[in-house]
Amino acid sequence: MFSAFDHKMMSRAIALAKKGRFTTAPNPNVGCVIVNNGQIVGEGFHYRAGLPHAEVFALRAAGDKARGATAYVTLEPCSHYGRTPPCALALIEAGISRVVCAMVDPNPKVAGNGVTLLQNAGVTVEVGLLEQDAKALNLGFIKAMQTGMPYVQLKMASSLDGRTALANGESKWITGPQARADVQHFRAQAGAILSTSATVIADDPSMNIRWQELPFYIQQQYPKSELRLPIRVIIDSQNRLSPDYQLFHLPGKTLLARCEQGDEVWPDSVTQLIISRTPDSSQLDLHELLQQLVKLGIYHIWVEAGAGLAGALVQNQLVDSFILYQAPKLMGAEARGVMNLPQLTAMGQVPNVSISDLRMVGTDIRITADIHSSYAPN
Amino acid sequence: MFSAFDHKMMSRAIALAKKGRFTTAPNPNVGCVIVNNGQIVGEGFHYRAGLPHAEVFALRAAGDKARGATAYVTLEPCSHYGRTPPCALALIEAGISRVVCAMVDPNPKVAGNGVTLLQNAGVTVEVGLLEQDAKALNLGFIKAMQTGMPYVQLKMASSLDGRTALANGESKWITGPQARADVQHFRAQAGAILSTSATVIADDPSMNIRWQELPFYIQQQYPKSELRLPIRVIIDSQNRLSPDYQLFHLPGKTLLARCEQGDEVWPDSVTQLIISRTPDSSQLDLHELLQQLVKLGIYHIWVEAGAGLAGALVQNQLVDSFILYQAPKLMGAEARGVMNLPQLTAMGQVPNVSISDLRMVGTDIRITADIHSSYAPN
Repeated sequence: MFSAFDHKMMSRAIALAKKGRFTTAPNPNVGCVIVNNGQIVGEGFHYRAGLPHAEVFALRAAGDKARGATAYVTLEPCSHYGRTPPCALALIEAGISRVVCAMVDPNPKVAGNGVTLLQNAGVTVEVGLLEQDAKALNLGFIKAMQTGMPYVQLKMASSLDGRTALANGESKWITGPQARADVQHFRAQAGAILSTSATVIADDPSMNIRWQELPFYIQQQYPKSELRLPIRVIIDSQNRLSPDYQLFHLPGKTLLARCEQGDEVWPDSVTQLIISRTPDSSQLDLHELLQQLVKLGIYHIWVEAGAGLAGALVQNQLVDSFILYQAPKLMGAEARGVMNLPQLTAMGQVPNVSISDLRMVGTDIRITADIHSSYAPN
Repeated sequence: MFSAFDHKMMSRAIALAKKGRFTTAPNPNVGCVIVNNGQIVGEGFHYRAGLPHAEVFALRAAGDKARGATAYVTLEPCSHYGRTPPCALALIEAGISRVVCAMVDPNPKVAGNGVTLLQNAGVTVEVGLLEQDAKALNLGFIKAMQTGMPYVQLKMASSLDGRTALANGESKWITGPQARADVQHFRAQAGAILSTSATVIADDPSMNIRWQELPFYIQQQYPKSELRLPIRVIIDSQNRLSPDYQLFHLPGKTLLARCEQGDEVWPDSVTQLIISRTPDSSQLDLHELLQQLVKLGIYHIWVEAGAGLAGALVQNQLVDSFILYQAPKLMGAEARGVMNLPQLTAMGQVPNVSISDLRMVGTDIRITADIHSSYAPN
């Protein structure tokens, strides 16, 4: 149904879409290629919320050559007036005769509206080319549109035998510098970095993007001033934090997730977000927190915390995937574990995962895995 | 100094040597290629103790064409009369004019004797081509000859977070069928499989090679009757074992390492080996046990036991390398750890390892690593 040429063009549109992955949040990554008579006449990708969509950049580049051309778009063109007019209309007005989209709009309430708008104007529309690759571009956006919950990615670091710190707490620099730089790269793509007051009190971390530690190809693409900073979300259910910690004074916004408003004086970049306690325990309701974050336009969450939050999120089936760095060390069974889970009594209760990527990062191992018990985009 | 052709021929000799790795123990793996006028005229490898050495097979195949030829041998030709006459003499008598060896004899007391014998007869000898690859053929043999201690390889299996069993002990089938078949492949190359009475009592394991579970290429090369069975060495320092367990009745020999002779009636294939207790504890002296095993011709030991023996061996710096299978599961910090080590108080005390191989085996991860605190062949 789709030709080899169609595949090649959609691959190119996906590659273009990826160029926005450090900047577009909360908007999705989208790429567009316009082809007339076998020649690429225009290309574009979405760069940042508020700026034009991918299709508009591509149509501008194509000019008159858009007439009678095919547009390859990684996501169904929008049909609604938002910050910009609907792209489906722009494609019709430019005279595009065929639109190939990788996937429909993930929001079930609007999915297909763009396709219908195009078809009613006589444009041929084909959907589903390289759909899996296109979905991988926007895991957070798609999950949020379909379920109201964010895509949650857990970062963990341990020794080969699953330990994060000696029994006395000593742990500094378990993983090597390449793994720490790799973490910067993931942080920069997330909508928010989620951590806890326990981690802040223990380590006084920055939870920041350090531009100078990003890979050179990202530095080239994004001047320091252009890089979007993920929001820091710090769970502080006992109001243990004060404005003294460094992360509250670094560039970027911080949300302090608490169960009661505190009366400390916070910098303007810090907002207290009040979340209920769970009925059965005195813990902050993680499900409600994540729902609230989606309402704030945070769809993809990168978690960097201790064994407690990691275990609570997994136990509540709120984690979609994790990245586990393993340092080439053995720390022994007396040392601290990487994930607290309730005491299980049968192997059938153990969370199964599937490993999607395995590689060395410097001298450390990096394991990427999906957790099955949680949501998986369909 | 060595030509590309020399490299190619030595690579071939190393590939030949590998064909013996399931059968030659306690003898080393050796391969030989004889080349006359740019043509391979004879090849051979050592197959089993008592059968001729690699050079003899290659010379037989070469016949008259050995005169004036070059012999590529992965190990210095022997100069002593053992079960077979010295290979250096056989090479001289056949009229070989040049010998290239990858490495000298690892026994410092005889290293170079074969080279001298050849040189005194006017043969050109060159040493050191692909030496590291040749050493990898005989890790156990080399370490035993140089230090009197065996090469110890630890097998471990855990979840991604370093757990072997739930707190109540439930653990059956942590890893998948491909990883279990992979274990068979390593067992078959070892001189002995080392385990403990605790493991025997808990699991009543076979600690055996199951020919039908070996990879097809090994089955093709070795009919079931030809395969060498590694010796089972079971540490039973409290004389807790009785002849009721299945492994005492399976094909192959078993050594029962104890601190006192027991008066049970054992099958003929079972021998009690008496080892001292350590002065400072009541534990069986692992160092003495390993020394004794070398004296019995066991140079390469594959350890399959629990967190106790694994930790004790690492702590005593007796482990050279390990293979850790990680199943795609998370079991939580309450579950049992993979290695017991004494409680460490500073990260500087943590055993560092270097990862030499990382791959998927079925749905499990396999990590191969060397431990630095232990012996490394020079």
